[in-house]
Amino acid sequence: LSELGELAIVEHIRKSFPTSHPSVLRGIGDDAAAVRGRTGTPLLLTVDLLIEGVHFDLDTTGARDLGWKALAVNLSDIAAMGGTPRYALLALGLPASLTEGFLRDFLRGFSQAARTHDTELIGGDTSSAPVVFIAVAVGGDAPPSGGIGRGGARPGDGVFVSGYPGMSALGLAVLKSGRPRGKADARWIRSHLTPRPQIALGRQLARKKLATAMIDCSDGLALDLARIAAASGVGMEIDAASVSFPRGFEARARSLKRDPLDLALGGGEDYELIFTSPSRKWGEVERLGRRLRTRIRRIGTVTRKSAGVTIRTGKGRVRNLAPFGYEHFR
Amino acid sequence: LSELGELAIVEHIRKSFPTSHPSVLRGIGDDAAAVRGRTGTPLLLTVDLLIEGVHFDLDTTGARDLGWKALAVNLSDIAAMGGTPRYALLALGLPASLTEGFLRDFLRGFSQAARTHDTELIGGDTSSAPVVFIAVAVGGDAPPSGGIGRGGARPGDGVFVSGYPGMSALGLAVLKSGRPRGKADARWIRSHLTPRPQIALGRQLARKKLATAMIDCSDGLALDLARIAAASGVGMEIDAASVSFPRGFEARARSLKRDPLDLALGGGEDYELIFTSPSRKWGEVERLGRRLRTRIRRIGTVTRKSAGVTIRTGKGRVRNLAPFGYEHFR
Repeated sequence: LSELGELAIVEHIRKSFPTSHPSVLRGIGDDAAAVRGRTGTPLLLTVDLLIEGVHFDLDTTGARDLGWKALAVNLSDIAAMGGTPRYALLALGLPASLTEGFLRDFLRGFSQAARTHDTELIGGDTSSAPVVFIAVAVGGDAPPSGGIGRGGARPGDGVFVSGYPGMSALGLAVLKSGRPRGKADARWIRSHLTPRPQIALGRQLARKKLATAMIDCSDGLALDLARIAAASGVGMEIDAASVSFPRGFEARARSLKRDPLDLALGGGEDYELIFTSPSRKWGEVERLGRRLRTRIRRIGTVTRKSAGVTIRTGKGRVRNLAPFGYEHFR
Repeated sequence: LSELGELAIVEHIRKSFPTSHPSVLRGIGDDAAAVRGRTGTPLLLTVDLLIEGVHFDLDTTGARDLGWKALAVNLSDIAAMGGTPRYALLALGLPASLTEGFLRDFLRGFSQAARTHDTELIGGDTSSAPVVFIAVAVGGDAPPSGGIGRGGARPGDGVFVSGYPGMSALGLAVLKSGRPRGKADARWIRSHLTPRPQIALGRQLARKKLATAMIDCSDGLALDLARIAAASGVGMEIDAASVSFPRGFEARARSLKRDPLDLALGGGEDYELIFTSPSRKWGEVERLGRRLRTRIRRIGTVTRKSAGVTIRTGKGRVRNLAPFGYEHFR
């Protein structure tokens, strides 16, 4: 599988299941799957894996934060469809050597994320396992359309992102350095360990029909932008100068010998929303951000040619933005 | 966790999530969770784990059979609620060293089970992992009640089981012996590697309101009977003589130094249905079995006292039936 790579594996899976029943409003390839009941509101379904040694290490991630994150990353997939999460299933494989305290703390964090986001755990499975394996499935109400997919971006649309992509990657770098500087680093670390899914933003973008395509920023801005571009058959021109950073971010990144822009473009695990929106709606997008007190930046434009994503750097140079970021099996 | 045990872990999880929204028709503690959309048919949701070295070994399980089984065990959970499976999500963690052929065969088996049972894969997740790690979530239509739970057995009800519990355990024993005897052993091995979920039976029992409680036999007859008894607050008296075996089963079990009755009571992974039914409906249960060409045996009676499950052996002796079977973390 190392020769195949994750994208090819997903493509492999997609090709193995070609038919799509009319009741499946969103199937393989979006952040969550939407199904229409015989009548009534469509339900969104999604599942995500968190595996020890792959997605997290127990020496940098506490059990409680892990519980929070296990649910939050799934809620983010529902948010990226413009839906409202409602139900969760938790499948948990745990080494028998772990303590009861670990389980308790994990469930406390999971439960806290569930309460915060009005989501109810309604089932699951447990098993012994050689390392900690977590699979969470979430069901939620979809917008009437079935949700905002990745394939709707149109030339001329603006490319928007919420929050500050890169904060989670800086938090991880700080944790790995083994020398966090107390309060000053707490913001980056929190962003990495207990990400906040942008559920209200996603839902409002769907309700007001402001976004033509949307994805959550889980594998790095560059890779997730490339996914929208590929699914929509368009290109994108990103303006590096519009990718901004919170106070103290750039200095801290450099102190760890990391390039701030690289952290933003390739870091991943931010669980912010990336979306495209036609120019006549930009004013409304801005007002929505203010009302939700959520930072929303326009960082580029959708272009006609399907030549992928380019980035314009400070000196007016344009280069291809390679879709780097986290890819499994490589 | 080895001190806690699986049942306590599930109880722990249940207690961490005490509230139940009125729309949750079946939550933690049944084979699948049922939720009512704002209007329309309730949807069943379930998730199950299959972990290499815990649930299967790659030297006794081929990739294609594994793919079939990964979906089948989840479909069985839907069957045990009396529901109709419709959608599946597949979360797959795989060692990077596996071949593409493994993936292809796995997906072929999964896809075959999906087609056979009218279930559509609508999403999922993939990741690298230290061992093969599979989590499948399935959604399905529930009966109007939300499904047949474990808690409805009443004193005087008959205890029924479909098929021949123990065949899967005999199949595993044959595989582990390393000396399968061709055609003669094929039936037991098939039962272990590619179990057939009893979807039509479960659905008909629900539609005709023939069952008061139901569970699928995944962890052994004794343990799964104890689960119905505990959830219903009743006892059960099982008649050992009514637990019957197919031709050749007993001789083959003994050739491997295994007790046939122990295989049936503690083997697990049969994915047959265990259910209770009031005496006025036994005739209809029998007719249903004939119509579906599915063997259904009455093996005991629900009793008033909540003293667990007892078994009456050949010589008229009655002993407690310890809820042995597969329990994780022990």
